[in-house]
Amino acid sequence: VKVRVLGSAAGGGAPQWNCGCANCRGMRTGTVAAHARRQESVAVSPTGDAWLLLNASPEIRAQIESFPGLWPREPRHSPVAGIVLTNGDLDHVLGLLSLRESHPLTVYATDTVRRGFTEGNVLYRTLQRFEGQVTWRSLRLGEELTAFTEGGTTLSLLPFAVPGKRPIHLEGPGALPTSDEDNIGLLVRTRGSSGTRTMAYAAAAAGWTDEMESRFAEADAVFFDGTFWSSDELIAAGLGTKRAEDMAHLPVGGPEGGLARLGRLRARRRILIHINNTNPILREDGPERAAVSAAGVEVAHDDMELTL
Amino acid sequence: VKVRVLGSAAGGGAPQWNCGCANCRGMRTGTVAAHARRQESVAVSPTGDAWLLLNASPEIRAQIESFPGLWPREPRHSPVAGIVLTNGDLDHVLGLLSLRESHPLTVYATDTVRRGFTEGNVLYRTLQRFEGQVTWRSLRLGEELTAFTEGGTTLSLLPFAVPGKRPIHLEGPGALPTSDEDNIGLLVRTRGSSGTRTMAYAAAAAGWTDEMESRFAEADAVFFDGTFWSSDELIAAGLGTKRAEDMAHLPVGGPEGGLARLGRLRARRRILIHINNTNPILREDGPERAAVSAAGVEVAHDDMELTL
Repeated sequence: VKVRVLGSAAGGGAPQWNCGCANCRGMRTGTVAAHARRQESVAVSPTGDAWLLLNASPEIRAQIESFPGLWPREPRHSPVAGIVLTNGDLDHVLGLLSLRESHPLTVYATDTVRRGFTEGNVLYRTLQRFEGQVTWRSLRLGEELTAFTEGGTTLSLLPFAVPGKRPIHLEGPGALPTSDEDNIGLLVRTRGSSGTRTMAYAAAAAGWTDEMESRFAEADAVFFDGTFWSSDELIAAGLGTKRAEDMAHLPVGGPEGGLARLGRLRARRRILIHINNTNPILREDGPERAAVSAAGVEVAHDDMELTL
Repeated sequence: VKVRVLGSAAGGGAPQWNCGCANCRGMRTGTVAAHARRQESVAVSPTGDAWLLLNASPEIRAQIESFPGLWPREPRHSPVAGIVLTNGDLDHVLGLLSLRESHPLTVYATDTVRRGFTEGNVLYRTLQRFEGQVTWRSLRLGEELTAFTEGGTTLSLLPFAVPGKRPIHLEGPGALPTSDEDNIGLLVRTRGSSGTRTMAYAAAAAGWTDEMESRFAEADAVFFDGTFWSSDELIAAGLGTKRAEDMAHLPVGGPEGGLARLGRLRARRRILIHINNTNPILREDGPERAAVSAAGVEVAHDDMELTL
């Protein structure tokens, strides 16, 4: 699997437009050892010809331009072979509405996430201008699906349930009941003449289940939710009233946090992604980053590349 | 009026994600004398403290970060005092959904544009999380409205009708009838101790009316629709089937085109904006750009600043 990180920050990016916290201020003025990050999205490809995007961030245009592998090779063309939605959060779906230049799209999502985006959404009509503009392919929990083959290597997706929640705009009175399909993890797998390689992807996770543990055990690399270091990160900084768990994110720190869990996996690469602007792991010279490194875990950054 | 161009390209930006035309290819590889441009949006301010954004492009996050004047000055803060929508096209409104960090927003739009964005749009619920999250202020054609005052200088908006059309996603069967409120121009005016200054803004115009002519006559600077050089620009390049007029844009070239019209105005600055990726005026060394300059007209670029 060829992997390119197009964005590694949580919703809002880092810095965030209305945030003047120490990290955001320091990133803007270059006075902290932390790099700015676009909102989370990762491109994967069997051999580097056609690519699937994991999530469609609002910044998708700049993200496509940031990576020559995604540049058109003809007057009307795109190496983007499809987009996979891991949940319906706006920072994962809004970018679809920026791909509206009458270009056929293939979008992979659970039926729940598809319906949450397409129903009652007049803006979606911009992607319904001709028959077949969007082809939806249903992701079903536990069922592996072949996306495409290039150069004799096949790329497949195996979705699995990850604790999460519905997107904020679908909560509240009249909301549908929550579902295992609201938020998923993926095994992205290539099979070719050089064997099988597997990447696990769970950019949002409210907890850690036995199923996740066993899926991650199959992976050469694991991307995992790095949103918050601690439960009360926003509260302690005076920037919000919600705990990490209220927003369906397992904190990175703590005895049963994401870092401790990742540290016990045998995958060759274990990488935190979807990092909130307030997270102290953004600081390359801080104790939290040192703890991440000491556990053999990495912090995703924009433009990071992996080959599995 | 202090003015900062946050983006100067038409919808899709330049380069555009799925376009490999000569301009897009050349901008990506640095082989043409043309600069990349984000999607159209302009910030205006009385004295540089608080700013109104004219249109909310999908790239709003990067645009805010591109200009220190828009950076937060407190842990939770934004110098963005409001957003003005000149029509309901997705490249003008989608950015609102990226300003969803529970921050109160003031949005100026005609009732038609407001309804087109807020009705039947489940995504808008992200901006309805608390009472007063968005304050809508109605723009009424021909009625001047005071936005705010800072340092003794008042900034006002005077909307006027400009030929245009409904956004694509609101066209088709069941669509409401078109209205003069679908697409507007603005006089942005400051009044203070140093007198009155006026900027005219019409980033999308399907034609040129007597009313536009008389509004523009009041302005020290005019920003005007620079989408296409010629009617058949997309057709001739093999990139589309629609003429400029089908997309409600007066071409820049030709005896009664935007350039000829602008050249006859007495405003000190006359500036083309909302420039499509295919437009030959993007090439700084081409004959079309030379014709623009010869007429005393400018081509907007990202990060351009004016003080009127």
